Order: sequence, then structure tokens, then C-alpha cells
Amino acid sequence: MATLNIVKIGGNIIDDKKRLNDFLHSFAQLKAHKILVHGGGKIASEIGKKLGLTPNYINGRRITDAATLELITMVYGGLINKNIAAQLQQKGTNAIGLSGADGAILKSKKRAVEEIDFGFVGDLNTADVNTATINALLQTGLVPVIAPLSYSEGALLNTNADTIANVIAMAMSGIMPVHLIYCFEQAGVLKNIEDPTSVIKTLRAEEFIQYQQDNIINEGMIPKLENAFSAVKAGVAKVIIGQAENLHELIAGTKGTSIL
Amino acid sequence: MATLNIVKIGGNIIDDKKRLNDFLHSFAQLKAHKILVHGGGKIASEIGKKLGLTPNYINGRRITDAATLELITMVYGGLINKNIAAQLQQKGTNAIGLSGADGAILKSKKRAVEEIDFGFVGDLNTADVNTATINALLQTGLVPVIAPLSYSEGALLNTNADTIANVIAMAMSGIMPVHLIYCFEQAGVLKNIEDPTSVIKTLRAEEFIQYQQDNIINEGMIPKLENAFSAVKAGVAKVIIGQAENLHELIAGTKGTSIL
Repeated sequence: MATLNIVKIGGNIIDDKKRLNDFLHSFAQLKAHKILVHGGGKIASEIGKKLGLTPNYINGRRITDAATLELITMVYGGLINKNIAAQLQQKGTNAIGLSGADGAILKSKKRAVEEIDFGFVGDLNTADVNTATINALLQTGLVPVIAPLSYSEGALLNTNADTIANVIAMAMSGIMPVHLIYCFEQAGVLKNIEDPTSVIKTLRAEEFIQYQQDNIINEGMIPKLENAFSAVKAGVAKVIIGQAENLHELIAGTKGTSIL
Repeated sequence: MATLNIVKIGGNIIDDKKRLNDFLHSFAQLKAHKILVHGGGKIASEIGKKLGLTPNYINGRRITDAATLELITMVYGGLINKNIAAQLQQKGTNAIGLSGADGAILKSKKRAVEEIDFGFVGDLNTADVNTATINALLQTGLVPVIAPLSYSEGALLNTNADTIANVIAMAMSGIMPVHLIYCFEQAGVLKNIEDPTSVIKTLRAEEFIQYQQDNIINEGMIPKLENAFSAVKAGVAKVIIGQAENLHELIAGTKGTSIL
């Protein structure tokens, strides 16, 4: 059965025209079914600033107020998403830019207010992914390009792009073999953050625990890797973490960190 | 064969939350295949103003410069389009918000520079509509919600929403019977613009010519009606012009102006 490659890119690629163009070129060359999940980028903050919005934080955590939700609906769901779709079309990939509301592909629940009211933020899990519609789009030859916006009760909600890639990968694994590729700043998970060549080639759950105890893998990477391990556990055939520039090598397993 | 209803709404509905909500409620109740094409609205100008953009006119014609194209990609393709999709989902319609780049459904050509350089404006005709992809989406049970943005050479272009509704209607008529409903400010084409009840119930091409000669139908309506007559000529089963509030009556032929 055809494999589905789900690739997640973040702001470091989106904010750099040349890197984005190069990445989209490699992505367009992938032959199997594919989905691109993208995050935001500095451009949202820049436009927000011009609109007179000041980012809202409580205890160091970013809050999505109504004005911020409008901003990211415009920038993530409109500007970034539609331009990626247009660029992929030119490169021969039949992209279709979507938010979670479109085809109701990603439902979510507004995060409950506990210590902090995060505002218009949606949390979702595997059951919230509309696999039937995503599969129908893939079978039509379309390539979903998904903005970090989920859908709840007639409205959009801000949702973490890593999480979206993760739940789609887990849900779609019930239909076809899935490879999940997280692109980030480094060539992979590093043994020594000072040394960009110290990429850990394969990582098992027990090694992950050991690396955390030894303080080799730290804060920023932990939620990303926890997501990755949960995906492997849920039946995602391959989870690879590395750099967008090495997309084909990541999929081939010759670069990046493979989560086992 | 199931009929396809293509409904076009403009800024007068989009800018009014209550009217938009009521309209989406009626639209959601339509049982046949359906497509919603939407225009812009004052909200784009308001956001543009906040971003420090000044609308650019040459000889009274609006120019789409690069900053304006970014603005409308955000506002039409993001904010308006995604919120309509989310609201329709809640009302039980499986909406999918699209620009012309998504699935390459609407290709266009950048308008040639003659007396005026209109900037990033795209013109398109029936052959530029990707009927196969639109039909595949409809057969999947999806309801396309289309922003006034077409696609050309890796980029988006500003495109008139009336024209988009028109060319989609003509192109899709080759596949299934199409009803095209233009919603605008008036209850229909009026015999006397001072009298909102003077709706012309049916309009034939020869009557249209006579009304123009008698100065009964004037400027603003002429391009809209020329579009409508070209649609009828090209095989669109019904073209009706009227008010969004009367959507069901327009389709039933009991209100508005039917173009014959």
C-alpha cells in the first residue's frame, strides 16, 4: 500500500523565502501520498505589531485572545497557507490548503481554564481527526497543506502544529502506513547541543529516559520527543526528526534521528 | 441528476454578522450540491488602514499592489473564508474553504498592462475552471466556499467574485444542471430604483437591451447582467438575481429577477 508522508515545518523555514522555496521543491518531489503541516512564523508577530496588538502572556505562556485568533486566522490560515499552496501548485504538487474547519478535518476542544486561561486554544487527539475526508482528498490526488488551526463549535482555535502532525499521523496509521517527519532547527536530536554533528541516529524509549536522566536531552526537545514516541507506540511506521534541507535523506533514514 | 446551486454573496452580507449568520443558515438548508462564492468587505479596508496601507487608484480604478494582494490573501482567503467554513460546519454543511490555488481550481492570467496597470489582478474564463477537482469535492459531499482569489504561476491574484461565480457556473454546466444565484443589495433588478418593490420578475436579452436604451437599467447593474446573460447562453439552467435574505424564494423563482 502507498505510504503517507506527513511532514511538519515550523517558522524557521516559513520565515526564510529561499529555504521555504527549496523545501517546497523537495517536498514536491516526494512520490507517495503526502501531507504538509505548517506552523506560524515571525511574520504573524510583525503583522500583529503593525495592527497594534501586543502579545499577551500569563506566567510566560502565550495567550490567544480574540484579536490574536483573528490575526493567526489571517496569517496562518490565509497568507502562509495560500501562498504555500500556490507555490506547490507551480512545482507540480496538487496542494489544497486547509484549516481544521475545512471538511471538519480537525475538531478540537477549547482548553479548559485551570490555573491559566489560554484563550482560543484547541486541544485534540486521534479521535478528532476526520480520517475519511483526509483519505478521500488523498485518493483524489490532492495534497493537504494544513494550517495550525482546529475547529470547535462554529469557530477556529489556535492549535500546536507539532500536535496536529502527530494526531493526523496516528489516526491515518489505521488506513495506510505513515511516515512522520518533524523538521526543526537542528540536523537531528543532538548528543551535545554545542556540536551540530553529534546527531543521535536512532532513539529508543529506554535511551530517551536515560538521556533525560543524564541531562543530555533537555527541555525544548522533551515534548517533541514525547509526541514522537506516542506516535510510534500508536502504530506510525517511522518517526524522524531533522532538518528540512535533508527531507529526502530523513525519509531514507540516512540523516536525522529515527525514533524507534 | 442533482442540481448544483452556486450562490454568490458580497460585502453587504459579509460585513453584517447577523445577516451573514442568517444567510449561512438558509444556505446550509439547501439540499442539492452547492458552492458558495464570497467577495470581500469593508473589513479588508479597515485592516488595511490599521496596517498603514492606502488604497491605490488610477483613473478611479482600484489597483492591487503587492501589499494589497497580501492583505486580501489574509482577509479574504483567511479571515472571511475560514470563518464562513467554520460557521457552515456548525450548521451541518461540510464546507471546505478554498482559493483558486487550492486544487488549482481557478487558474487565471494576470491582466495585461494597457492604459492602466491593475497590478495583481487575474482574469479567467470557463476553460480556467478545474471542473474535475470541483466535481470530485462535490461527490465527496464537500461544499466548496470560494474566496475571490485565483491562481497563476505560483502566486495568487485578486479576482472579481461575480466573475468567479459566473465562470464556475458555466464550466460546471457541462457536468450537471446549475442554478446561479447572485445576491446583492436589492430584491432584484428594479424598474424604478426609487421603488424597492418594482422588481422585474423575468428578464430576456431583448428586454435588457430595451431597458438600457430607456435608461431604466443603469451602470452598476450592466456588467452583472451581462455576466448573467452570458451564463444563460452558456447553458446555466437558471440565473437569478436578488437578496440573500430570500435565498430559498430566489431558487424557487418566487422572488428576485430570473434571467431568461
